[in-house]
Amino acid sequence: MSILASSRRASSKASYLRASFRCYSSAFREERDTFGPIQVPSDKLWGAQTQRSLQNFEIGGERERMPEPIIRAFGVLKKCAAKVNIGYGLDPAIGNAIMQAAQEVSEGKLNDHFPLVVWQTGSGTQSNMNANEVIANRAAEILGHKRGDKAVHPNDHVNRSQSSNDTFPTVMHIAAATEINSRLLPKLKQLHTTLHAKSLEFNDIVKIGRTHTQDATPLTLGQEFSGYTTQVKYGIDRVLCTLPRIYQLAQGGTAVGTGLNTKKGFDAKIAEAVAEETNLPFVTAENKFEALAAHDAFVESSGSLNTVATSLMKIANDIRFLGSGPRCGLGELILPENEPGSSIMPGKVNPTQCEALTMVCAQIMGNHVAITVGGSNGHFELNVFKPVMASNLLHSVRLLGDASASFEKNCVRGIQANRERIHKLLHESLMLVTSLNPKIGYDNAALVAKTAHKEGSTLKEAALKLGVLTSEEFDTLVVPEKMIGPSD
Amino acid sequence: MSILASSRRASSKASYLRASFRCYSSAFREERDTFGPIQVPSDKLWGAQTQRSLQNFEIGGERERMPEPIIRAFGVLKKCAAKVNIGYGLDPAIGNAIMQAAQEVSEGKLNDHFPLVVWQTGSGTQSNMNANEVIANRAAEILGHKRGDKAVHPNDHVNRSQSSNDTFPTVMHIAAATEINSRLLPKLKQLHTTLHAKSLEFNDIVKIGRTHTQDATPLTLGQEFSGYTTQVKYGIDRVLCTLPRIYQLAQGGTAVGTGLNTKKGFDAKIAEAVAEETNLPFVTAENKFEALAAHDAFVESSGSLNTVATSLMKIANDIRFLGSGPRCGLGELILPENEPGSSIMPGKVNPTQCEALTMVCAQIMGNHVAITVGGSNGHFELNVFKPVMASNLLHSVRLLGDASASFEKNCVRGIQANRERIHKLLHESLMLVTSLNPKIGYDNAALVAKTAHKEGSTLKEAALKLGVLTSEEFDTLVVPEKMIGPSD
Amino acid sequence: MSILASSRRASSKASYLRASFRCYSSAFREERDTFGPIQVPSDKLWGAQTQRSLQNFEIGGERERMPEPIIRAFGVLKKCAAKVNIGYGLDPAIGNAIMQAAQEVSEGKLNDHFPLVVWQTGSGTQSNMNANEVIANRAAEILGHKRGDKAVHPNDHVNRSQSSNDTFPTVMHIAAATEINSRLLPKLKQLHTTLHAKSLEFNDIVKIGRTHTQDATPLTLGQEFSGYTTQVKYGIDRVLCTLPRIYQLAQGGTAVGTGLNTKKGFDAKIAEAVAEETNLPFVTAENKFEALAAHDAFVESSGSLNTVATSLMKIANDIRFLGSGPRCGLGELILPENEPGSSIMPGKVNPTQCEALTMVCAQIMGNHVAITVGGSNGHFELNVFKPVMASNLLHSVRLLGDASASFEKNCVRGIQANRERIHKLLHESLMLVTSLNPKIGYDNAALVAKTAHKEGSTLKEAALKLGVLTSEEFDTLVVPEKMIGPSD
Amino acid sequence: MSILASSRRASSKASYLRASFRCYSSAFREERDTFGPIQVPSDKLWGAQTQRSLQNFEIGGERERMPEPIIRAFGVLKKCAAKVNIGYGLDPAIGNAIMQAAQEVSEGKLNDHFPLVVWQTGSGTQSNMNANEVIANRAAEILGHKRGDKAVHPNDHVNRSQSSNDTFPTVMHIAAATEINSRLLPKLKQLHTTLHAKSLEFNDIVKIGRTHTQDATPLTLGQEFSGYTTQVKYGIDRVLCTLPRIYQLAQGGTAVGTGLNTKKGFDAKIAEAVAEETNLPFVTAENKFEALAAHDAFVESSGSLNTVATSLMKIANDIRFLGSGPRCGLGELILPENEPGSSIMPGKVNPTQCEALTMVCAQIMGNHVAITVGGSNGHFELNVFKPVMASNLLHSVRLLGDASASFEKNCVRGIQANRERIHKLLHESLMLVTSLNPKIGYDNAALVAKTAHKEGSTLKEAALKLGVLTSEEFDTLVVPEKMIGPSD
Repeated sequence: MSILASSRRASSKASYLRASFRCYSSAFREERDTFGPIQVPSDKLWGAQTQRSLQNFEIGGERERMPEPIIRAFGVLKKCAAKVNIGYGLDPAIGNAIMQAAQEVSEGKLNDHFPLVVWQTGSGTQSNMNANEVIANRAAEILGHKRGDKAVHPNDHVNRSQSSNDTFPTVMHIAAATEINSRLLPKLKQLHTTLHAKSLEFNDIVKIGRTHTQDATPLTLGQEFSGYTTQVKYGIDRVLCTLPRIYQLAQGGTAVGTGLNTKKGFDAKIAEAVAEETNLPFVTAENKFEALAAHDAFVESSGSLNTVATSLMKIANDIRFLGSGPRCGLGELILPENEPGSSIMPGKVNPTQCEALTMVCAQIMGNHVAITVGGSNGHFELNVFKPVMASNLLHSVRLLGDASASFEKNCVRGIQANRERIHKLLHESLMLVTSLNPKIGYDNAALVAKTAHKEGSTLKEAALKLGVLTSEEFDTLVVPEKMIGPSD
Repeated sequence: MSILASSRRASSKASYLRASFRCYSSAFREERDTFGPIQVPSDKLWGAQTQRSLQNFEIGGERERMPEPIIRAFGVLKKCAAKVNIGYGLDPAIGNAIMQAAQEVSEGKLNDHFPLVVWQTGSGTQSNMNANEVIANRAAEILGHKRGDKAVHPNDHVNRSQSSNDTFPTVMHIAAATEINSRLLPKLKQLHTTLHAKSLEFNDIVKIGRTHTQDATPLTLGQEFSGYTTQVKYGIDRVLCTLPRIYQLAQGGTAVGTGLNTKKGFDAKIAEAVAEETNLPFVTAENKFEALAAHDAFVESSGSLNTVATSLMKIANDIRFLGSGPRCGLGELILPENEPGSSIMPGKVNPTQCEALTMVCAQIMGNHVAITVGGSNGHFELNVFKPVMASNLLHSVRLLGDASASFEKNCVRGIQANRERIHKLLHESLMLVTSLNPKIGYDNAALVAKTAHKEGSTLKEAALKLGVLTSEEFDTLVVPEKMIGPSD
Repeated sequence: MSILASSRRASSKASYLRASFRCYSSAFREERDTFGPIQVPSDKLWGAQTQRSLQNFEIGGERERMPEPIIRAFGVLKKCAAKVNIGYGLDPAIGNAIMQAAQEVSEGKLNDHFPLVVWQTGSGTQSNMNANEVIANRAAEILGHKRGDKAVHPNDHVNRSQSSNDTFPTVMHIAAATEINSRLLPKLKQLHTTLHAKSLEFNDIVKIGRTHTQDATPLTLGQEFSGYTTQVKYGIDRVLCTLPRIYQLAQGGTAVGTGLNTKKGFDAKIAEAVAEETNLPFVTAENKFEALAAHDAFVESSGSLNTVATSLMKIANDIRFLGSGPRCGLGELILPENEPGSSIMPGKVNPTQCEALTMVCAQIMGNHVAITVGGSNGHFELNVFKPVMASNLLHSVRLLGDASASFEKNCVRGIQANRERIHKLLHESLMLVTSLNPKIGYDNAALVAKTAHKEGSTLKEAALKLGVLTSEEFDTLVVPEKMIGPSD
Repeated sequence: MSILASSRRASSKASYLRASFRCYSSAFREERDTFGPIQVPSDKLWGAQTQRSLQNFEIGGERERMPEPIIRAFGVLKKCAAKVNIGYGLDPAIGNAIMQAAQEVSEGKLNDHFPLVVWQTGSGTQSNMNANEVIANRAAEILGHKRGDKAVHPNDHVNRSQSSNDTFPTVMHIAAATEINSRLLPKLKQLHTTLHAKSLEFNDIVKIGRTHTQDATPLTLGQEFSGYTTQVKYGIDRVLCTLPRIYQLAQGGTAVGTGLNTKKGFDAKIAEAVAEETNLPFVTAENKFEALAAHDAFVESSGSLNTVATSLMKIANDIRFLGSGPRCGLGELILPENEPGSSIMPGKVNPTQCEALTMVCAQIMGNHVAITVGGSNGHFELNVFKPVMASNLLHSVRLLGDASASFEKNCVRGIQANRERIHKLLHESLMLVTSLNPKIGYDNAALVAKTAHKEGSTLKEAALKLGVLTSEEFDTLVVPEKMIGPSD
């Protein structure tokens, strides 16, 4: 007895078993869609369309599953849709069961029932059906029915007044907004706070500046860290700037943006419900045609992450170079030691947090290009690069948040200034010679510097040797602490 | 007599002649800097450091010259600096001559005296010196002196209280803000206006929708264009969002951001002067260390252009596909014919404006990556990818503005709807069968559609043949005009 | 009793539990490294350094684990190293136990013991130590010892004559070469074979050509598919071109490329052993300094995948547009129907395989940028973007292979030509008018075309109406089949 | 009398004057195409279609003109086409005049007559017509006719048996191959030679290694440079690898790849003629459909440049960091001083050549993305991103070649090792402690290192103080020169 709808998918069961990873179900039940019947593992809540997708898109394996925030957002959306649909006439018993099942999805309790990968139909239709099928079967169970008996119907009830074409962009926006607010912004803020604290802590430490990687005029270590602080502060602003367009929901546009098969007001009501459910200021999209056919808001938002990544790449690079050594590098910073660097070599502290962070930054720059390419390739009423755009943006948000937190906790927070080394480098520098100009003139000052450079001596030694200044005069004139700001 | 400072640059004159393109000067004068004397073409205002750069960076040729908006912005900045410096004690005679010379630079009158390419020192130092030298020599002439006699000194007078490290980021911001406001935003706004007008013009034309490139439920052509309109509208918002950080000027940070060698208040005064000169709301940067060491504002701004490029890529692609034909494509739009498509084939109108625009979009996506890479690679107190970042951003702004204008003028403005074709496609479509559900039931409706698909007939023909409806009933039920919005 | 080495990691156990995902081990054992003792789950083979990494890099969660091919390649490498080390004096009992344990790793049997994520130290040190620890503990067990008693030492035995700095690039190359040869090339070849078969199958079908998306002169559908076939063929060549540099192994370079702590010949012997083990032509890298400090071979190889992605993006786009319809698109191809497109609309076959494939292509373009950024940022003797480069390349290889296979199996193989539609479009086209030139002259031919365009008639109708040709003459002259190649 | 074809281009003359930059022609002549008559500046050789493009595509200004190598390649191609066409019956008088005129184009003598920008039709049609028009008018002059009288016809004679669709990809390939061979490869080879020489020169200088930017075991400076040498060597190989597909010419495919309107053998003959003319091994493309519809060869070739860019970015970064100082950086290399770094600070040598080169690398990475996006967006029989792909590839080739040459000449060639500093850092390093293990045991060695680290002393001082070794023993054991390779 064939378990499959058609003979041209003869190898499907075998491939299902491969595709289903570790789910060695011993039993199957029959589900059915307009294509006919299909066998589905008994212990799974999904239905026929999910099962077909699993067999038709064996791409990438388990790692490539639709990101969890999308699944949770489907839970939020389907709950809200049921709530609004009750108002429009959906049987409250069914509606409430859907709401309860959807709540479980939104809490991540049914993650194992969402096996589909990112690499499916470009509208995310199959993940929408996955959500509809799982919620329908779970709601049916709640109402005392059996899985697969369609007591609660995935399309007629769970997906009522909806289309994949508007639900998927809606969950993209819900997931992005939620993740940005919960995972990214708090961690960037924490990083900002810690950098700011370091900037204050290091406020009195005058050090050599470096431009073109070469010695330059001095500044304080606090000033240097204030630059990093400002970068992160503006990074937060940049991400916030993009949120108004992320808060716009496509829901209510249905198949092509017209809202066919919805009632007037459905779109606004559902945005309101989602806003209430998530405590985020979602609104209905001003133009549903744009909201289905383009995902410029994701390209824009990814652009802000790309900018934050350039900032953090710069900061992490500086910190690892300033912490390089222990003997043959710059050695101005002492980084926390989190793991053995070398078994015999004390002081070899590898800047591993900087490395993890800069790798994350490279990934975000790459993800941004994937999102850009996907965003530019929509056609007519529908962009069909939705899952790849969603996956990359959520990947970037998660990595950037986590890596910022790890960097803050395991690196920045514990950075100490190597005051002795900083002082030594500063006072060996030839750059301070500029302070002598007013007293001994440009030509003599240059002569002092040239002599020191040639002989490998300090400026003071050269000045005394040339007899242009006394030791006391030198010490009075060369005060780096007076070189760190404009004059009165 | 050697014309060169040192023997290791023995081939310099020959190489200068190669590098100087069409400037076959017969005469040279001697200029000098701390490196010694060097021969400079007599008819040029530049000095020794510019000349050295010309010889040391033979990269890319004339096409690669520092973009004109940077040169003009140097004019603006140096004029403002002289003005402020007079207030701080600069000899007014010299100051006024500098202001006059700088004004000429800002008007593009001295462009031929700015021969340096983008591919120079990464701080833009040599272009800053180019500006200082040209303005000093021109100011000297204004005061009745000879070129090269240093009556007005490039460093002591023109560059007073400045460093390349703060002037170059300042002119980057002045140039970007000016170009965005003058070249980009007006053209995007014009494109928005025209798209909006088309959206209204096409408001009553019901057409087939397309999702997954496949036939879908109908919408109006006006609705379709309203999506494009919204994309461009948001694009303008996106660019505007990034301007507050572009309006921050680094000037006053000098070498490393501390403001050494400036007087307190110099930074704010110069930002104020630039704001007045340009009529744009420039302010002094909140943190000068960030302003020299990072150019995140450029990465951010480029990100907004990247988003606009994805929008325009989508719009231009739609328009060329909707205008494809004349016989074997979609044929819903008639695009203006601006040049011969085919000498014998009437109606072969190649969508050349769409092609130019989409090529520009590809370029902007590439430029964005160059800017991102440059922005992420700053070290310590100075990012030394300034010229490449400036060049790419200004390139993107110019191309995006010009291509939007060309597209608007030579394509969008003249688009006509092919109403006959649109009507024919719509009514041949099988998608309209969904309207029959309420009357004849889902099963009969599906049967009608299957029959039509199989036999290649219209829905109406199939319905009549199957005897499920009369002709009048069909016409009453199948009214695409009722399918273009939510129901009451 | 504290389970932790130091108080500053006070929250480590809690964080371990978060980090350890679903591994709710009830029991722990103590492992130790130069940092001191640390608690490790009893049921896991990993040791102290793996545990520390797990706690220090909570970035991205389980999805972000080091890719499996890297783990397996560690198995291959450590087995070969033990084999070679026995020849250099390693106790054969220990060596054989290591080989057996490493074999298990190479077969994927111990995957659950490799919990570390990509976002760790940029040299991959921690994954190297993870491999050393797991293999040491497993080998100890094989020899009848307990986990953690260091009977087999992770450093002294398993990692003998090795450094993370040469092992990680070695496993990168082993994993890439293996995956390219096993997962990518066979699938590209299968796609090529099927496209070639389609090209032959469609050899006699003359159709309208399209340039600028506009109607153009005819070609056969077979010719059109021969273009795709050639693209894929060259794609395979491109990937093959990069393999010689992937086959170079860094092993033997140890910490900085000098080979300190190895015996002469160790490098060549280990490459030979890996070649034998994998049946791939690995050799020792010509220059170990390059092999540690740069991963240009990965940037290059990713570049070849990026090129294949542009090819497949083009092919998949063409196929979805040629299959667009069923009524209102081009409709020349009939794509296999793998899942319900629309419940009521027969013939709405969404090109879902094209969508999955083009999304994969976008991802590969993005991954390529991540790899490029990582590859450009190495410093001195070590590039520390190894894991991100490895992860992205392996991601691209896997996705490209799987998506090519899915596209071949679920789409290309089943494509049918809609001969009726193709014939109709071809003969409605005005482009064929060029055939009339020799007989009736350019002016009359143009008149025929203009008339047909204006009146919406066929060329034949127009020609007969204008009386310039008889029906027989027209049919003799207008033979698209004669327009598909050069003339004799 | 109107000078314009239609009233809707009423502002054309004004816009022409803006578009024509510095060509303030006082006189115009009338040219005409199928669109009608149009005024063209008398002193220019171009015709009507060029003039229309100039007016229709005011994008980017003069800087954006089609790259000169494309113009020259058109000269080569049109000369070869005339030669082959004479063999197929073209009037030899006309053919020879065309060959002479085309020769002038190939030598760059008529560059001023090619005013069109990159941002035109995506097939490059207008530049092909520009070439046809200029050559036709110039050939007519050679034959004693007037410009514009069509004695030599741009289409019938100059473009005979050709289409823009095959000529433009052909000139893309001719230009790319020529530029790569003449501008890029010789310069990369010179850079390779000089790096190799430095590697030999520095062969005996033992220095501290650096991994993770931290102190590591020693190597020689020559070994370090051998890594760079190998990177450049492989870079040359990578570029060479892509040439076979660049040497394939599309010519003979005409409009859609079929070769309609050519005689059999035309394609091979023209490739042969181009090969002879250029002395490069061009062949006719194996599949003309691929050659028109895709430009994967450009994506591939750009990929090789992208890889070279990552190599050079790494090398230049290393060199600037190793040359950082003079007092507060690593200071191991002394870079040549090409221009004043600081007027008063001797030794402040900014690594300006490194900066120019790394900026170029960033540009090439960006250009690569533009090419990738363009390459992925072809449709049906024609990719219409040809000019943007050509422009970016040629830009990258030129910049990479020039910057490599500048870097070689103005930086690498003059690099000196700061032997004193290198020696000092090496001997201060704690890393050498590993040499003591065999003599005093691991524990004592670690104690020595810890003591030195804690007290800021040298290893030797610590060892003597701890009494574990005599001075002589220390000097015998700690010999970095023995740590730079495998042992026997």
